[in-house]
Amino acid sequence: MATKTAWGGRFQQELDTDSARFLESVSFDRRLAEEDIAGSLAHAEMLASIGVLTDDDLAKIRQGLGAIRSEIRAGTFTWDAAKEDVHMNIESALTAREGDVGARLHTGRSRNDQVATDMRLWARDACARVGRSLDRLALTLAARADDEIDTLLPAYTHIQRAQPNRLAHHLMAWVEMLDRDHGRLHDCAMRLNECPLGSGAVCATTFPLDRKLTATLLGFARPTRNSLDATADRDFLLELLSALAIASVHLSRIAEEMVWWSTQEFGFVEMADAHATGSSMMPQKKNPDVAEVVRGKSGRVIGDLVSLLVVLKGLPLGYNRDLQEDKVPVFDAVDTVSDATEVMADAMGALRFNRERMRAALGAGFVTATEVADWLAARGVPFRHAHEVAGRLVARAIEARCELAQLPLETFREEHALFDESIFVALDPETAIERRDLPGGPARARVVAAIADARARLEARGASLARTRHATP
Amino acid sequence: MATKTAWGGRFQQELDTDSARFLESVSFDRRLAEEDIAGSLAHAEMLASIGVLTDDDLAKIRQGLGAIRSEIRAGTFTWDAAKEDVHMNIESALTAREGDVGARLHTGRSRNDQVATDMRLWARDACARVGRSLDRLALTLAARADDEIDTLLPAYTHIQRAQPNRLAHHLMAWVEMLDRDHGRLHDCAMRLNECPLGSGAVCATTFPLDRKLTATLLGFARPTRNSLDATADRDFLLELLSALAIASVHLSRIAEEMVWWSTQEFGFVEMADAHATGSSMMPQKKNPDVAEVVRGKSGRVIGDLVSLLVVLKGLPLGYNRDLQEDKVPVFDAVDTVSDATEVMADAMGALRFNRERMRAALGAGFVTATEVADWLAARGVPFRHAHEVAGRLVARAIEARCELAQLPLETFREEHALFDESIFVALDPETAIERRDLPGGPARARVVAAIADARARLEARGASLARTRHATP
Amino acid sequence: MATKTAWGGRFQQELDTDSARFLESVSFDRRLAEEDIAGSLAHAEMLASIGVLTDDDLAKIRQGLGAIRSEIRAGTFTWDAAKEDVHMNIESALTAREGDVGARLHTGRSRNDQVATDMRLWARDACARVGRSLDRLALTLAARADDEIDTLLPAYTHIQRAQPNRLAHHLMAWVEMLDRDHGRLHDCAMRLNECPLGSGAVCATTFPLDRKLTATLLGFARPTRNSLDATADRDFLLELLSALAIASVHLSRIAEEMVWWSTQEFGFVEMADAHATGSSMMPQKKNPDVAEVVRGKSGRVIGDLVSLLVVLKGLPLGYNRDLQEDKVPVFDAVDTVSDATEVMADAMGALRFNRERMRAALGAGFVTATEVADWLAARGVPFRHAHEVAGRLVARAIEARCELAQLPLETFREEHALFDESIFVALDPETAIERRDLPGGPARARVVAAIADARARLEARGASLARTRHATP
Amino acid sequence: MATKTAWGGRFQQELDTDSARFLESVSFDRRLAEEDIAGSLAHAEMLASIGVLTDDDLAKIRQGLGAIRSEIRAGTFTWDAAKEDVHMNIESALTAREGDVGARLHTGRSRNDQVATDMRLWARDACARVGRSLDRLALTLAARADDEIDTLLPAYTHIQRAQPNRLAHHLMAWVEMLDRDHGRLHDCAMRLNECPLGSGAVCATTFPLDRKLTATLLGFARPTRNSLDATADRDFLLELLSALAIASVHLSRIAEEMVWWSTQEFGFVEMADAHATGSSMMPQKKNPDVAEVVRGKSGRVIGDLVSLLVVLKGLPLGYNRDLQEDKVPVFDAVDTVSDATEVMADAMGALRFNRERMRAALGAGFVTATEVADWLAARGVPFRHAHEVAGRLVARAIEARCELAQLPLETFREEHALFDESIFVALDPETAIERRDLPGGPARARVVAAIADARARLEARGASLARTRHATP
Repeated sequence: MATKTAWGGRFQQELDTDSARFLESVSFDRRLAEEDIAGSLAHAEMLASIGVLTDDDLAKIRQGLGAIRSEIRAGTFTWDAAKEDVHMNIESALTAREGDVGARLHTGRSRNDQVATDMRLWARDACARVGRSLDRLALTLAARADDEIDTLLPAYTHIQRAQPNRLAHHLMAWVEMLDRDHGRLHDCAMRLNECPLGSGAVCATTFPLDRKLTATLLGFARPTRNSLDATADRDFLLELLSALAIASVHLSRIAEEMVWWSTQEFGFVEMADAHATGSSMMPQKKNPDVAEVVRGKSGRVIGDLVSLLVVLKGLPLGYNRDLQEDKVPVFDAVDTVSDATEVMADAMGALRFNRERMRAALGAGFVTATEVADWLAARGVPFRHAHEVAGRLVARAIEARCELAQLPLETFREEHALFDESIFVALDPETAIERRDLPGGPARARVVAAIADARARLEARGASLARTRHATP
Repeated sequence: MATKTAWGGRFQQELDTDSARFLESVSFDRRLAEEDIAGSLAHAEMLASIGVLTDDDLAKIRQGLGAIRSEIRAGTFTWDAAKEDVHMNIESALTAREGDVGARLHTGRSRNDQVATDMRLWARDACARVGRSLDRLALTLAARADDEIDTLLPAYTHIQRAQPNRLAHHLMAWVEMLDRDHGRLHDCAMRLNECPLGSGAVCATTFPLDRKLTATLLGFARPTRNSLDATADRDFLLELLSALAIASVHLSRIAEEMVWWSTQEFGFVEMADAHATGSSMMPQKKNPDVAEVVRGKSGRVIGDLVSLLVVLKGLPLGYNRDLQEDKVPVFDAVDTVSDATEVMADAMGALRFNRERMRAALGAGFVTATEVADWLAARGVPFRHAHEVAGRLVARAIEARCELAQLPLETFREEHALFDESIFVALDPETAIERRDLPGGPARARVVAAIADARARLEARGASLARTRHATP
Repeated sequence: MATKTAWGGRFQQELDTDSARFLESVSFDRRLAEEDIAGSLAHAEMLASIGVLTDDDLAKIRQGLGAIRSEIRAGTFTWDAAKEDVHMNIESALTAREGDVGARLHTGRSRNDQVATDMRLWARDACARVGRSLDRLALTLAARADDEIDTLLPAYTHIQRAQPNRLAHHLMAWVEMLDRDHGRLHDCAMRLNECPLGSGAVCATTFPLDRKLTATLLGFARPTRNSLDATADRDFLLELLSALAIASVHLSRIAEEMVWWSTQEFGFVEMADAHATGSSMMPQKKNPDVAEVVRGKSGRVIGDLVSLLVVLKGLPLGYNRDLQEDKVPVFDAVDTVSDATEVMADAMGALRFNRERMRAALGAGFVTATEVADWLAARGVPFRHAHEVAGRLVARAIEARCELAQLPLETFREEHALFDESIFVALDPETAIERRDLPGGPARARVVAAIADARARLEARGASLARTRHATP
Repeated sequence: MATKTAWGGRFQQELDTDSARFLESVSFDRRLAEEDIAGSLAHAEMLASIGVLTDDDLAKIRQGLGAIRSEIRAGTFTWDAAKEDVHMNIESALTAREGDVGARLHTGRSRNDQVATDMRLWARDACARVGRSLDRLALTLAARADDEIDTLLPAYTHIQRAQPNRLAHHLMAWVEMLDRDHGRLHDCAMRLNECPLGSGAVCATTFPLDRKLTATLLGFARPTRNSLDATADRDFLLELLSALAIASVHLSRIAEEMVWWSTQEFGFVEMADAHATGSSMMPQKKNPDVAEVVRGKSGRVIGDLVSLLVVLKGLPLGYNRDLQEDKVPVFDAVDTVSDATEVMADAMGALRFNRERMRAALGAGFVTATEVADWLAARGVPFRHAHEVAGRLVARAIEARCELAQLPLETFREEHALFDESIFVALDPETAIERRDLPGGPARARVVAAIADARARLEARGASLARTRHATP
């Protein structure tokens, strides 16, 4: 069985049905419909400006493409897999409506530069959309940090209690990570912002296109600089996928802590019922599923990145059909990171912090042992020696089954003669935090300033706590 | 906005709509419907055998699930995302039809052991299906090898012409690769063939289930040996994905040669019009798209493998919701390899080999230079010295712009006194091939035997050239 | 600057020094020295058996290679990067010692089949070695399970307390995972156990080699079946890397629990001082570094697998120099998994389990709520309804800030009339565990049997608790 | 057996020797010695500025570290694995030389912020070094493009001859790809340019450090903004690895064409003897090994990226020992890309282009069929119809076994009445190229301008053709 295709002249046999099914892309690339139409409108306007199309042609094209776009938006457009891809589906619908101008629109253009343009437009928009979602999550975290400015808990290293900390400082660490994710997406959007149209199939075209005009109409900074490169490379998608993979790793790290902090053992947080699920067997269960699935989704995004790296590995110039495999991983990764970020923003907004459990966790684990070493070091004992002294005091407290503050001063003195009563002030967690009064440190004023600074940055680029989720077709 | 769920008793708030959408799996796990029903039927029969269900209960369950299965096959079943997953969709449909027995069916079972069972059944079947597709491709290649038993071409190393070869020998190399792929899938199917049912959510169940009976009813070799492991690990899917990734790399290698052999420069093969496409800009183009997309798809499968490795990395026991992310990559990889293999089998069957171009390629490139070294070595010259002599003769031929056989005997003698006229016989490609008469070598009889041997193996396991493609829901 | 190489005859210019450095492999492939010599000895013996070498030649080769092997083992052999690879280093040392027989040894052989043979020998041995390490870890876990047969703790799903469990059952879940890892390595070793020697560079050789003899001498089951495939494919290494990647994920999962169970919050385990480290700043810290690094190393092994998949993607037949890139990832992954497994076995052997903390964790979290549902279901209430009743009881206990067993019978009766005093027996964790008396369940006798069964399997294949670590050169 | 470590006070048992070997990092992190010393010098100067160290202390530290640095550079420094890592090795050498000031230097600092600083310094430098190598390759390509400005060959799509092209245009496509790689490395270096020192182990320090001063002394733009984030995240290395992975894919694509263009079938290029190798079996072989190994190395770099993504996935805050696994993949990827780029630059500089073979390839394959369609489209025929006409003409030429230009005008007229003699002018490859006179197109003037533009950009950032390779320790 065979399928009718569009490049018939040279061929004697039609494409085998199974091959056609294997090769078709309209089932997924129709997602580019808006970008494809925008690109065609710009190309048409440019063709009219150089006299290849008449004003009447241009009007028909605008009318036809406008109507098609309305149908697509309304969900009434009939997609036909036999027409291979989004480009041919739209073009043949245009020809069916408006006649020859549809056939004329492809002058000086190939599907190779067309799809490269569509993907750049789509990726540019995706950078902005995901960036907004990340900013919403960051703003949510900053708002929660503001609320919890006086909530104390241990900071952990190696997941062992390490030093006294402020919950807000922990939350703001996540904001920093998300901020860099935003930066990477921004750089990606800047670097890809060149217009491939005019590159043709591989070696441009013989028509005297005004490439700068097309670029300007589509909001691109300039035309691409080499026609082979413009049609054959997809490194802008690799860069996008890299930025998304890194962001998904950040989300997985935040999720990991939500999951563990939700355990009965930690009990630091409780997810709202609205973001948790139960068990079909165990009636008591309340599981932090949203966080678990967010954590798991990082696998998906990393897999998407690997997919496209493998696709591109070893491909010669120019366009090869392997490039069709760029779309599924890119669409999937953008959706995944976007959805995961939004659902995390919701979950973070509704999360209950258990301040008592957090504060209680400071009461054990010798979290102020560093203070002992610092106290000595500040009095001239070389830090390494001071550290050794503090370590011995910890060992004595373990032996005595008490905390450092419960050891008598005498014991301190046995380990180092310099100790006096003021050591007990140093051992108070709140004091310990407040003394960490450096830029980037957990002292209250520093964290308040960090929150304000982050909010100002986020608001400056238009982030808002309102829902930013895009409609996925 | 919120969504009604099934584990309500303990919860006060319903699941947030966006979270529900983020968490639902029925949009993809409904593909497990057949396996889920088969598992439920076996579980019900076992429950009846131990007296937990009455014969009447069992009859109702069989009738209800049978009807639901018919609806699903007919495409008339209504899937409801609010019911989370395939299991709850089917169970609630059963309860709606047959009342309390639906609610009773879940006795001694959790979705955790249920989904683990479904995935093993599905994966076991997938191993068999993909194995059959690989075998069909292998049989096709063996048949083409049989046809082309007298077609000669160069063997290449570093993609440089190396030694004279027989096309059939080249094709049979691919058969070997595919044969090992089949072996890996078979081993995977054997290792996973244990039944998780009875493992419950994590620690089995208090009901005295007859786990061996359930296992037998579902064709499993035995019950799984540890309930935590059975519900929390997915290494059988990693093994399946690994086998598929390796197979996809093999397909990419075959595809690579189809693509390059289709170039005007090589001209060794021409894909049938039915498996090639043209260009929307360049009227003369005939592109080997099927091979290119097969090559590209290896990226997808490798990405799927990486996805699941990342998902599982660092997960504690037992079940975590991250495991839900096992399905999309596994389904995708199975479909991808299955489709790519089938389309390659079609394309290989229809491929035109250009025997003249292949034979002509033997006429240049000094492909029998090894014969010169071997000729000397067979006469007692240490191979390394013989190699050096042959290398100097090649240099002289390059200088004289001729092939080795065109050098006068005198030139040969200048490089080594042992040479006589018989060297020119050795330089004939056909002679050179026939003298490579070892097991695994390209001599005609060896390749004929290899083809017969491969066919016997393939037919012994039921492979056939008939179309094996499965219906993808 | 240029470097002297061995294939000189045809070349006019020598290899550029930087290129030579870029291309050399002896810095890493010298690790194949033992295998290379073993292969050469077998090849020589076979050549003598067919009369290509004399008995005297063979004696010289044996003596020369034996001496070289001794030097290599003693660390006194001089490796020379200018001689490219392990093969040429050894061959030229042999020629230097024994003269022409060294040059004659390469008769009917190419570095392409030689390195393929070396890698198969090495990989076969690696499968066995890593398998032994995995078995040692499994035996250690089984021994610890035996010791802790009466230690109870919660089983977790979603890292929430789920049901009462036996520590030994948890440990035996890990044993199951490791057992499948062993199985995969075993299958890999079986499938790769074919001898490439005789495949030559790509199309076998004109010498009448006795391939079966060579195969037998090297312990291979048979010669490879196709010379192109034998020299150009490395799927046996992909299979090895896949098995190692899966094993490394298993190790990461075990490590994750060691890390979290070591927290002050869980306090379930304490790693021995011998496997933990401190902090250069915080004197109180004791960090589970061994477990953390094991967890991290899974990244390395997954990366190694991806590396080789990418290397092989799209490579045409036969040998391409890209294949040289197989060694570093394979060596690295084998070492990494081997070392991580050994160090985990040591750490597991020395780990202190805190039985009191584990038992105490059963006292909260409603871990026997499933028993309530099962109690009703066993009395004829459909499971789904029973689950709903139990869920409401949990909600009432949360409200009353108590555990289920602390609710009065009256409250139970308000939720379902069937309840009587016997429900409180069911709520006892130990009872709950013992009633889970199925194959694969946590009841004491089942776990005792599982331990015995695992030990029998492990001992049958020669596993021992003695140190198995290999000497890494 | 046990090993002496530095954080002893709290511990009763020493670190097990095997664990110590498993955990040590000095075997690879000593590569950070220069950065570590630079960081310590800056920290010391800052400590002196705030009065924590005296001028005399500072002088001693400078002298000691200077002497140690000299020893390290000279290769005479004794590294001791028992001292765990580069930091402790250097610090203890300092203490051995200068006494207490060595112990005092660690005031207000932890290895956690120290190693984060070292890695940022190293990565920043790596971005610059790799960037210079990429620029050298780009300049080499631009120079070759300049030389080959009049060399014509086909442009390929799907590796089928597509349209006439200019070799220089093809080479400049590679320059574009490398230019974006440079951009990504630059962005990465900018984003990571913040100083972690002062972040301490996790929550800064109680000492009133002047973080801005330290940052300035080390050339950082500012201190990091959050102490947890600064010590626990490595996304700057993920970004670096992503940029390197993309660059390695670019190199693999260039290499792929070098390999195929070197075949006897294409014959477009010949690698210099200095960058090619021969065969141990086949005396005639000249293999493009450098290109093959470059192609293969992309697997390595992609694997490195995946490794670190997996390491970071799911890690909670703050520092975890898993992070130690960041170094090997980063060092490996930087070295690999750097070396591969340098060797490609050398190979490209020495590559021989076979102009005749390239030009000859334009003579077949209907590479000017697009001109026929464009000729008609320029005369008002809708492009789709024109394409159909040209396709039929190609079919007729195939039938007549000739090229389009050899068909009689009559045949053209049979397909479309508009054709006249001028069509034959359009069919000339050189004309066809010159008419593609757009920005980014292959017309001579456009390519000349592109070369000049690229050179200006490259020279503006200091690129030079001189050798840039760094000394790898």
